[in-house]
Amino acid sequence: MSGNSHENTSANTPMMNTLVVIGLGLIGGSLALALKKANACHKVIGIARKPDVAKRALERGIADEVFTSITEVAGRLGAGDVIFIAVPTLTVREVLGEIQRCVSAEVTITDGASVKGSVLDDVKAVYGCVPPQVVLGHPIAGSEQSGVEAAKADLYEHHRIILTPTEHTGKQHLARITAMWQEINAEVLELDVENHDAILGATSHLPHVIAFSLVDTLAHDSHNEDIFRYAAGGFRDFTRIASSDVVMWRDIMLANKKAVLESIDLFSDNLAQLRNTIAAGDSQGLTEIFGRSKIARDQFTHLLDERKASLKAKASSIDDEL
Amino acid sequence: MSGNSHENTSANTPMMNTLVVIGLGLIGGSLALALKKANACHKVIGIARKPDVAKRALERGIADEVFTSITEVAGRLGAGDVIFIAVPTLTVREVLGEIQRCVSAEVTITDGASVKGSVLDDVKAVYGCVPPQVVLGHPIAGSEQSGVEAAKADLYEHHRIILTPTEHTGKQHLARITAMWQEINAEVLELDVENHDAILGATSHLPHVIAFSLVDTLAHDSHNEDIFRYAAGGFRDFTRIASSDVVMWRDIMLANKKAVLESIDLFSDNLAQLRNTIAAGDSQGLTEIFGRSKIARDQFTHLLDERKASLKAKASSIDDEL
Repeated sequence: MSGNSHENTSANTPMMNTLVVIGLGLIGGSLALALKKANACHKVIGIARKPDVAKRALERGIADEVFTSITEVAGRLGAGDVIFIAVPTLTVREVLGEIQRCVSAEVTITDGASVKGSVLDDVKAVYGCVPPQVVLGHPIAGSEQSGVEAAKADLYEHHRIILTPTEHTGKQHLARITAMWQEINAEVLELDVENHDAILGATSHLPHVIAFSLVDTLAHDSHNEDIFRYAAGGFRDFTRIASSDVVMWRDIMLANKKAVLESIDLFSDNLAQLRNTIAAGDSQGLTEIFGRSKIARDQFTHLLDERKASLKAKASSIDDEL
Repeated sequence: MSGNSHENTSANTPMMNTLVVIGLGLIGGSLALALKKANACHKVIGIARKPDVAKRALERGIADEVFTSITEVAGRLGAGDVIFIAVPTLTVREVLGEIQRCVSAEVTITDGASVKGSVLDDVKAVYGCVPPQVVLGHPIAGSEQSGVEAAKADLYEHHRIILTPTEHTGKQHLARITAMWQEINAEVLELDVENHDAILGATSHLPHVIAFSLVDTLAHDSHNEDIFRYAAGGFRDFTRIASSDVVMWRDIMLANKKAVLESIDLFSDNLAQLRNTIAAGDSQGLTEIFGRSKIARDQFTHLLDERKASLKAKASSIDDEL
């Protein structure tokens, strides 16, 4: 037993005992690095199947120890310890199955998957209910880089974390995960599972579908070998997310199929209307569509800037107090 | 008459006498600032209809003098002078009409419009032929910012400029425009008009259509007021081009209608196939599509990095020689 109070979230005392990160890629590795940097946990144990990932995680100081399975360390875990599941969405069920078989009900379990409905289904399938110890979450941060080398301590700083507690979620477990993210200067919000998946389906999963499809169209359907030769920085920014991790995004599309298909259909209808407006040479109609899009996008950018400034100001005033 | 050789393109001697920029926005203003910074012309005359734009162009040092019409300065222009037309694509014909009525055949005329087929049609309609003095071009550089305030001296540095000369284009005029862009560290390439419009339709105009349509879908079709509240930096990058100038892009879509519609149709077909792959839960199919897109996009980025490094190395070795 550790002598520390596990509920203490001040920056000087580790707020949790052990963090176990299952999956040492961009998402899992970055949380480990951030919590270590904030001195917010005693120890990070990594779980990775590939020996080269384990080796690099140890070399980079992402984890203090690395094992190939949660079963090897489950006996050591208890109240105040946190397991963070950071594997591709469709691998979560298998990982949860292992956890259910060996991990005590006192340990807090959370995740970073981009789809919450499928993971909640996994929890129910594995546990037969939603146990109080499970707090599902989704950090709204990422990169087109992936893997253990891409992990970085500031990935989540000033970013939003959406937690999707249910009526069964334990208050202390929810408080622990909320405090964990706040400790590394992330902003925690709560949404219900269905809303989360609909909103992220539209603002994140749909843009990835579009980016992958656009690059595929140009590279394989256009029959013009010079097509990329004359593309510039704007195209690079626009297609950045088409360089994202293939397995992660394949799983997201399949796990959030209903919302993703609805978003694609809504977008396809809008695009077809815009196509007809161009085909008709409707100058006034085009001005209206482009104009209202520009206004909406400028407003979104303005809000994002304001929120970032407010989060930074908040973080620096907390730093000043310490 | 100036005593300078107009064909001399060394950095110490102005390579042209007077540059007239018609339209003092991002595109026109940036060329003026770059040439002034490189000491590559004696004088910049701006043409702007709006008094506040004229005022700001003078204040920012973009132009030495500003007039409301080319007719006011045409009498002063001759061999070695360059007119750069930088107005929205569908305004080019009107501007060319004014130029044809008052500007001597010795003056070199070029432009920065993103569509070359429609501008070539404008030239033919106005002049009854393609006069040797006309060298059409398109700098592959831009920003979602627009207007006189957005102009900056380094917009074109290490960027590509596509010139689309015809069999009628005068060699000296083509050499002058090529040298003008090279003087400010841009890379000049040549393409025929049809290829230019097809390639840019796919790599630039189509992404703008998609970005405007995506933002419009989310802002107006999704009926979810919270939709932007949970979007993050990835969405911001992806939709950056939806903040672009409305009139400029409206004109581009109408001027390049045929190529834009072909690109939209090709993309819509690809997107529909991807939708079906997701709907079928075809994991293997999704892995293939996302995988080949990622490879194509990573290759494009690699090429872009190599080209930029090579252009920068070239520019710095020239600087070293001087």
